[in-house]
Amino acid sequence: MQQFSDPDHLRTAARGWRREGRRIGFVPTMGNLHEGHLSLLRRAAAECDVALLSVYVNPKQFGPQEDFANYPRTLAEDLALAASAGCSDVFVPTDATIYPPGFATSVTVAGLTEPLCGRSRPGHFAGVTTVVAKLFCLVVPDRAYFGEKDYQQLQVIRRLTADLGLGTEVVGCPIVREADGLAMSSRNRYLNPAERAAAVCLSRAIAAAQRVAADGADAAETILAAAQIVLARQPLARIDYLELVNPETLQPLARLDRPARLILAVQVGPARLLDNGPIEPAESKPGPLLSLS
Amino acid sequence: MQQFSDPDHLRTAARGWRREGRRIGFVPTMGNLHEGHLSLLRRAAAECDVALLSVYVNPKQFGPQEDFANYPRTLAEDLALAASAGCSDVFVPTDATIYPPGFATSVTVAGLTEPLCGRSRPGHFAGVTTVVAKLFCLVVPDRAYFGEKDYQQLQVIRRLTADLGLGTEVVGCPIVREADGLAMSSRNRYLNPAERAAAVCLSRAIAAAQRVAADGADAAETILAAAQIVLARQPLARIDYLELVNPETLQPLARLDRPARLILAVQVGPARLLDNGPIEPAESKPGPLLSLS
Repeated sequence: MQQFSDPDHLRTAARGWRREGRRIGFVPTMGNLHEGHLSLLRRAAAECDVALLSVYVNPKQFGPQEDFANYPRTLAEDLALAASAGCSDVFVPTDATIYPPGFATSVTVAGLTEPLCGRSRPGHFAGVTTVVAKLFCLVVPDRAYFGEKDYQQLQVIRRLTADLGLGTEVVGCPIVREADGLAMSSRNRYLNPAERAAAVCLSRAIAAAQRVAADGADAAETILAAAQIVLARQPLARIDYLELVNPETLQPLARLDRPARLILAVQVGPARLLDNGPIEPAESKPGPLLSLS
Repeated sequence: MQQFSDPDHLRTAARGWRREGRRIGFVPTMGNLHEGHLSLLRRAAAECDVALLSVYVNPKQFGPQEDFANYPRTLAEDLALAASAGCSDVFVPTDATIYPPGFATSVTVAGLTEPLCGRSRPGHFAGVTTVVAKLFCLVVPDRAYFGEKDYQQLQVIRRLTADLGLGTEVVGCPIVREADGLAMSSRNRYLNPAERAAAVCLSRAIAAAQRVAADGADAAETILAAAQIVLARQPLARIDYLELVNPETLQPLARLDRPARLILAVQVGPARLLDNGPIEPAESKPGPLLSLS
């Protein structure tokens, strides 16, 4: 694996790759790689000629009270895991090269960034879109891979990428889960054993919502209540938000009259955990009650 | 000249140029080309393999009370002039392709956009930086050419380009002037003959400031007063702003202790005109008074 730390060197290399007609697959991460990240890298390696990983804990996307200082940094392990997943090139920049003295540019996306995590984490998405825009401008990837675990982020980056016109195809990849259903996340490391056991309530809440929808419930209220019951039974969990939304606009739905997404953020001990899943309208509505006459 | 209207076609063509190792020189404009624009195109043609012009009257950079509707649109003449200046390719997009339905991204630059025109035209620079970022992302130019007439814009775009990391070199080109000194601008067309005659006061004000500085004045107050006197004598002119600033930061200078820039915006009839020029400290300070003893 080739490793870059200087953005200018990375840009020069990327230009060379494009000149040679090599397709660039890009997986931007904050490191502390888990199977979710590795699934993105494997796909990039399978679909592109260059599978480029970036590892950068971006300070701009953390709020002042958030876990920037404690965010797990495990570069040596990350590099070994990335190599095993077919990664060909790694970019590990420093703050001083991503945000050099005098840096003054913000890239923001209106609308999609406002609900859900946008309400809970003011400034978070502006940090994400600014750094992703910068990374995309450096690399000009053919494809960029993001996990569906951060579903709102994925939609925001789709919008950003279409709007900027770089021509990058944003590929959303399925959530990778632990055996008990917990969505993989670097922040799962913050959980003690009791919290780790409790954290399964997120995926179970989604499953409960999916079941009532499959049984024919179509009021958002009913579907959300099914999820809330599961979460309320778990004393270590505190709901940040739980919403049934249009999967493209992220606007709340009152009725399940189309495929929807259940999205939730739940605080479990020190970790704010995200999960989401599709909620499909029941295949066929129950018919009218049979007349017994 | 090859003409593009679809951003996807332009991007594909630009990728082809880069693959062939051709250097792309880019001149983004709002059309209504004059000798100032043509000087940029000639330089792009001389320095690069592709000299790409864009013609797009960007609605986002006009305020609600400004001249978007009346801005001169003269595409047929523009194309003929561009060809004569060595332009090889032209991009003439529509609003619907630059800002397709759902467009939600803003690219902003803090600091440099706040003084001068930033105070007079709120939102103007956000419109400029958003469209320039989009155009740069589509084209990924090796060099982009801007006139020094819009001096603040040039500094803002230098910052934007460095921050985004696209690797484009921003080339600032000297102001092209009419025979009497008026800086060329598409908005000069708004002037009637009396206003056109009056408009020379901008460049004369700069010349007056340069003269007092050359004579040894180093208080900003004195230098600005020399310019103000010229402007005040012209009843058709109303100063929007007149400042002596640090040429990189655009912050006001109290003393001419380094090379500075005098920047002014003046309303002359229906046209808001810009001009600027370098103000250099006098080469040598006058010595102490000779003793007559």
